[in-house]
Amino acid sequence: MNIYEESLLAHRNARGKLSMVSKVPLQSRHDMSVYYSPGVAAVSERLAKHPAETSLYTNTHNCVAVVSDGTSVLGLGNIGPEGALPVMEGKAILFKHFADIDAVPIVLNTQDPDEIINTVVAIAPSFGGINLEDIAAPQCFYIEDELKKRLSIPVMHDDQHGTAVVVLAGLINACRVTHRELSSSKIVLVGAGAAGVAIAKLLTKYASPTILAVDSKGVITANRTDLNPEKQLLASYSQDDGSKTLKDAIQGADIFIGVSRGGLLSKDMVHSMAKDPIIFALANPEPEIMPTDAKAAGAAIIATGRSDFPNQVNNVLAFPGLFRGALDNQTSITDEHKIAAAEALAYTVRNPNNETIIPSPLDDGVMNAVASVFSKKR
Amino acid sequence: MNIYEESLLAHRNARGKLSMVSKVPLQSRHDMSVYYSPGVAAVSERLAKHPAETSLYTNTHNCVAVVSDGTSVLGLGNIGPEGALPVMEGKAILFKHFADIDAVPIVLNTQDPDEIINTVVAIAPSFGGINLEDIAAPQCFYIEDELKKRLSIPVMHDDQHGTAVVVLAGLINACRVTHRELSSSKIVLVGAGAAGVAIAKLLTKYASPTILAVDSKGVITANRTDLNPEKQLLASYSQDDGSKTLKDAIQGADIFIGVSRGGLLSKDMVHSMAKDPIIFALANPEPEIMPTDAKAAGAAIIATGRSDFPNQVNNVLAFPGLFRGALDNQTSITDEHKIAAAEALAYTVRNPNNETIIPSPLDDGVMNAVASVFSKKR
Repeated sequence: MNIYEESLLAHRNARGKLSMVSKVPLQSRHDMSVYYSPGVAAVSERLAKHPAETSLYTNTHNCVAVVSDGTSVLGLGNIGPEGALPVMEGKAILFKHFADIDAVPIVLNTQDPDEIINTVVAIAPSFGGINLEDIAAPQCFYIEDELKKRLSIPVMHDDQHGTAVVVLAGLINACRVTHRELSSSKIVLVGAGAAGVAIAKLLTKYASPTILAVDSKGVITANRTDLNPEKQLLASYSQDDGSKTLKDAIQGADIFIGVSRGGLLSKDMVHSMAKDPIIFALANPEPEIMPTDAKAAGAAIIATGRSDFPNQVNNVLAFPGLFRGALDNQTSITDEHKIAAAEALAYTVRNPNNETIIPSPLDDGVMNAVASVFSKKR
Repeated sequence: MNIYEESLLAHRNARGKLSMVSKVPLQSRHDMSVYYSPGVAAVSERLAKHPAETSLYTNTHNCVAVVSDGTSVLGLGNIGPEGALPVMEGKAILFKHFADIDAVPIVLNTQDPDEIINTVVAIAPSFGGINLEDIAAPQCFYIEDELKKRLSIPVMHDDQHGTAVVVLAGLINACRVTHRELSSSKIVLVGAGAAGVAIAKLLTKYASPTILAVDSKGVITANRTDLNPEKQLLASYSQDDGSKTLKDAIQGADIFIGVSRGGLLSKDMVHSMAKDPIIFALANPEPEIMPTDAKAAGAAIIATGRSDFPNQVNNVLAFPGLFRGALDNQTSITDEHKIAAAEALAYTVRNPNNETIIPSPLDDGVMNAVASVFSKKR
C-alpha cells in the first residue's frame, strides 16, 4: 500500500480529522445556567458595550479560520471546495499540534475575489485571525491585500508568506555554509505563482540580492509585453542583465530557487552556476532537479519540498508560530515579523551544514522561536 | 455572587468555551504524510471527482455552523456579533454535550439579509448543517427560506422551530393531563416574533386549533392596517371572533402561550379562562405571569422558560436531536419531522402530571427520541 492508498483508507476510517470539544463542565443545570442561559447574558451585554474585550471572554484569542476557495490545492490546481476540505482539516490539525491554535476549516463555494473578500469580512468577528490557503495567483494578492485593509485581525496567505519565510531561513543558513553574502548573490527564481512573488518580495526587502525571475518563456523583464499581472509584479523585483532564457540566466548564478515544475533544471545548468551553488528545487512532488543529480552536477546544498530528502522547505515551520505570535500580541503579521521569523528559524539550527540548513518541524523550540519575534519590540 | 456575576467570572477564567482537537495521531513524519501532504492529495482528488463523498472523508457529516447576526440575542435585542458570540459558543457546547455534534460559532458583522444569505451559502461546503440563531423577525423568515432553497444541507432557525417543537410537546402532555383535545382548544398567543410565528404555524399544521394572536394593540386580524410583514403572517393563522383586546380574547380560552414580555397576563385574565387552563408564560427572564400567581388564579398547568420552575420549555430538548437525526440521515428538517419530534418528546414523559409535562434536558434518551424520528419512514 503506498502513501496515497494509506491516506485514503485512514481518512475513510477517521471520517474527518477534527473534533470540537467543550473546555468547560456541563454536567448540571447550574453549569448550563453559568455557561448558557441565563448567565451568559451578562457576558453578552458586556461584549456588546466593550467589543474590544471579546478575546478575553470568548475563543477568538486562540481561533483562526483556514480559508480556501479550492483554486490552487497542493499540486492539483483548481479542484473546488470539497477537494480542498481535507487539506484544510489537515492544516487545522497542524495548527493545533504545533501551536495549540483552534483552527476552523472554511471552504468556499465561490471563486469570485470580491465575494471571497466579503464572505471573510462577514465571518471575521468569529475569529482572531485568517489563514488564507491554496488560493491561486493572481487573485490571492488582491484578496489578501483587501482583507488586510478591511480587517483588524491578522490575515496571511500561507502559500505566499509561509513559504517565503522558510525559504529565507534556509538561504540564510545556506549562505553561511557556503560563505556567501545573500546581498551580493545572484539568484535565479523560476515560478511566477503566489510563492514566487512572495519569495522575490521578501528576499528584496531583506538583502536586495540580484534576482532574475524566469518563466516558461524566459527571463521576466518589464519590457516583455506578454506579462499577466502577477508576472508584472515579479518583473519589478527582477533584474535585466540581457539574458533571455533560463539557460542563459543560470550561468554564474549563486542560487536557484524553483517553485515551478518537476525536471526543469538540468545537470548542465547546475554545472554552469557559480562554485558551490545553492539549489532550492521546491516543486512538489517532483523537484525541478532530483537531489542526487544536483549533487552530481556540483551543487553544494540542495533543498526540496519533500520529507524524504534532507533540507525540507515546509511551511509548517512558519505558520504555527506566526499566528501564535500574532494572536498573543494582537498584531498583524508584517514583513519585519517575517524577516525576524526567518532569522529565528535559521538560528534554531545549531550547526548548519550542507545536509542541515533548515530545522525539522518536529524539533523542539521551532514554533516558540518564531512566535517570540512578535513579543520583541521592533 | 449572583448567576450573572458568576457567569462573567467563569467566562473570564475560561477565555472561550470551545477547543478544536485532532481526532488522528500526528506524532511522526509518517503521520504528517498520511493526514497532510503528500497523502491527503489522494483524498482531495477523490472528493474533487466525487463531491457527494465529502461527508465520508471529512468532518462535514458531524459539523454544524451556529450562525448569528446578533440582531435578537436572548432578551437583549440587537447587540451585534461580539455580544452574540458567547451565546453561540454556549450553543456549540450544548450541541456537543447532548448530540456529540461539532458545532462552529459563526457571528456575522452584517445585518443585511441578502449579505447574510450569500455569506452562509459561500461557507456552506464546510458544514453538514446550518443552525440559524438569534436572528430577528421578520428577516429571519426570509433568510431561512432562501437558505433552504439554495442549500442541500439541513438549515434550521432554532428560535423558531426549536421553540415550536418543545411548545407542541408540552401542549400534547398538558392536554392529556387536563383531558382536552388540542384541535378543539382555543389558544391565545401573545408575541409576534420568530417564536410566535413558528408556534402558530406548527400548531395549525398539527391540530388546527382556534388561535387568537395578540400584540400590544390587540387581536391580530387580517383587516388591521398596521401590520408589519411578520404580523401579517401571524394573522393568517389567527381567527377573528370579534374580540379586540387581550382581555376580551382570553375569556374562555383553554390555553395561553406568551412569547412576549414579562407581567403581561393578569390574575383576572387567568380567572376568565376556561376551567383548568393551561398557561405557557415563556418570556425570559420575567414570565408573562409568575407561576404562583397563575396557580392562585386557577391555572391547572404553568410552563415557563426558566430552569427554576417546573415545566421548563427549553430549546435544548429539540435542536440537538433534530440536527443529529438530520445529519445522520442526510435530510432536511421538515414540518413532519418537527411534529414527530414533538410527539416523541412528549412520550418520553412516562407519567405526565401538572408539574411534569416536559422532560428535563438532562434525562437520558431525550436526544435519541428526537433523532430517531428521522430514521423512520415518513
